[in-house]
Amino acid sequence: MVIAVIGDSHCSAEEAKLAETVGELLAQQGVTVICGGLTGVMEAVCRGAKSKGGLTIGILPGGDSSMANPWVDIPVVTGLGEARNVLVVKSAQAVIAIGGGYGTLSEIAYALRSGIPVIGLNTWSLSRHEREDNSIIGVQSATEAVDKAIALVKKHKVYEIASLRSQ
Amino acid sequence: MVIAVIGDSHCSAEEAKLAETVGELLAQQGVTVICGGLTGVMEAVCRGAKSKGGLTIGILPGGDSSMANPWVDIPVVTGLGEARNVLVVKSAQAVIAIGGGYGTLSEIAYALRSGIPVIGLNTWSLSRHEREDNSIIGVQSATEAVDKAIALVKKHKVYEIASLRSQ
Amino acid sequence: MVIAVIGDSHCSAEEAKLAETVGELLAQQGVTVICGGLTGVMEAVCRGAKSKGGLTIGILPGGDSSMANPWVDIPVVTGLGEARNVLVVKSAQAVIAIGGGYGTLSEIAYALRSGIPVIGLNTWSLSRHEREDNSIIGVQSATEAVDKAIALVKKHKVYEIASLRSQ
Amino acid sequence: MVIAVIGDSHCSAEEAKLAETVGELLAQQGVTVICGGLTGVMEAVCRGAKSKGGLTIGILPGGDSSMANPWVDIPVVTGLGEARNVLVVKSAQAVIAIGGGYGTLSEIAYALRSGIPVIGLNTWSLSRHEREDNSIIGVQSATEAVDKAIALVKKHKVYEIASLRSQ
Repeated sequence: MVIAVIGDSHCSAEEAKLAETVGELLAQQGVTVICGGLTGVMEAVCRGAKSKGGLTIGILPGGDSSMANPWVDIPVVTGLGEARNVLVVKSAQAVIAIGGGYGTLSEIAYALRSGIPVIGLNTWSLSRHEREDNSIIGVQSATEAVDKAIALVKKHKVYEIASLRSQ
Repeated sequence: MVIAVIGDSHCSAEEAKLAETVGELLAQQGVTVICGGLTGVMEAVCRGAKSKGGLTIGILPGGDSSMANPWVDIPVVTGLGEARNVLVVKSAQAVIAIGGGYGTLSEIAYALRSGIPVIGLNTWSLSRHEREDNSIIGVQSATEAVDKAIALVKKHKVYEIASLRSQ
Repeated sequence: MVIAVIGDSHCSAEEAKLAETVGELLAQQGVTVICGGLTGVMEAVCRGAKSKGGLTIGILPGGDSSMANPWVDIPVVTGLGEARNVLVVKSAQAVIAIGGGYGTLSEIAYALRSGIPVIGLNTWSLSRHEREDNSIIGVQSATEAVDKAIALVKKHKVYEIASLRSQ
Repeated sequence: MVIAVIGDSHCSAEEAKLAETVGELLAQQGVTVICGGLTGVMEAVCRGAKSKGGLTIGILPGGDSSMANPWVDIPVVTGLGEARNVLVVKSAQAVIAIGGGYGTLSEIAYALRSGIPVIGLNTWSLSRHEREDNSIIGVQSATEAVDKAIALVKKHKVYEIASLRSQ
């Protein structure tokens, strides 16, 4: 299972702590972490995952691997700039958003467009045409975020298998 | 001047009418229209622009030009899928969003991240971390959208020139 | 008709002269020029095209339009780095390669893969598995390059129409 | 260490055998294999690597992971089409090309442009402006390819460290 963790390259101490705990919990469940590979939330989640022996993938915007944080196991060098955002979320089965600016918002939008569930910790909320859009699943803690994300991936897989069988 | 018009490939009759009028008004002001090149809002804005002799550019997601709507003068074939969204907005000096789904939301996010002004007609509204984000400039009519977008580009250019002179 | 002209951002005076003449000839035939938008061959072809009233499109690798040469009418800002090379050729109906380094070679490869004809002026030649690959159509002058490219696009279109009619 | 193995999605039995052996040898040396994730050479190298307990990454052109071959551990979903070719080589420290068509040629070109060494097994050869370009390092066997690639990465790293120390 691969879960993306997204958020800003500059983040508060509180967001970094959340991200690090999310990384630890994902690694403990055997989940591979994918992220944008840079600093802030991306670095904290990788550090947490590595502290528990997890595997981390960083989808880098730049043209070489020099900007990867030290806890990225597999730097994917894209040179695509911000267009790399779509790769971060499409390579995952679920997304956990922690805080985040407009880059994170673009990733949330891409995930929702692809039907990939988004769990939010103190992140964006959306209204479309004056009606609230509750697609981002708000949670209150790192544990809740990880449990919810894993549960949704498993549920989705069961549906997929069921749907294949009924064909 | 190049202005991007973004919105869904499936849109309401009202949104199509708005987009067509926006296209007419932009063309009448000599503004080049850039969009995603497909149907819905993208087709309506191109049709409007062409009816007034404007120039239209379509940044296509597919690997050939067959999906371009008939009012695209210059189809840019990317084969990039949804990663092409970032090109639509970064190639413009301002963005007008009409309605729109998650693809449009990703474009709004990319524009705001790049400091490109976004004018919204019945589109998304955003809150970050429980505080309203008013970066999308809401307007009520096609005329207001076009006037506001052009005014912002001109204002920005004046600032740019002033800033260059003071160096 | 849109024809791509590709080559190095640093080129010899002879290559620049060739590119400029190619640009003039394309514009005189009403052909839109697409290129990578930077210096060298790209700048020369745009300058030539503009001197004859042509339209020029530059698919830029960077994240803003500041690197576009002054003869680009429509800068498409991609931020994609070298991944933008595929857009340059896929948006054209034929490609003229003038000299060129490895970036140009990647564009030639993409064009041949997509079945887009490549006309070469003092450019790469290829052997695959020890057998010569003559897919690049070698020519000796700017006039020959432009005539050949336009003829191939027209021939291809006739075939397309014939093939559609016979269905 | 990450090494890219590139080649066609449709390949001869001989090329598949070569690719499988290359995968086995890379995995035995603890090298991560990166490739385009599809069939042919890409599938054979992944199968070989997995048979020796290696780690495999597939940079997929499509918008979901359904086209990944069964021996890809980490499918990176790009939706970028052929623009994904640049990611395959830029994420590696060396490239081994086995046979290959124009897609492979675009990858060779991107690698050479980025200064990433390319080892060739029965693949393209190049002449530029009528002079042979010997940048592709030709070898005769899977063993030779893997030994050469690993040696070049190590040599390059030593140089990098030396160059850092002398600053």
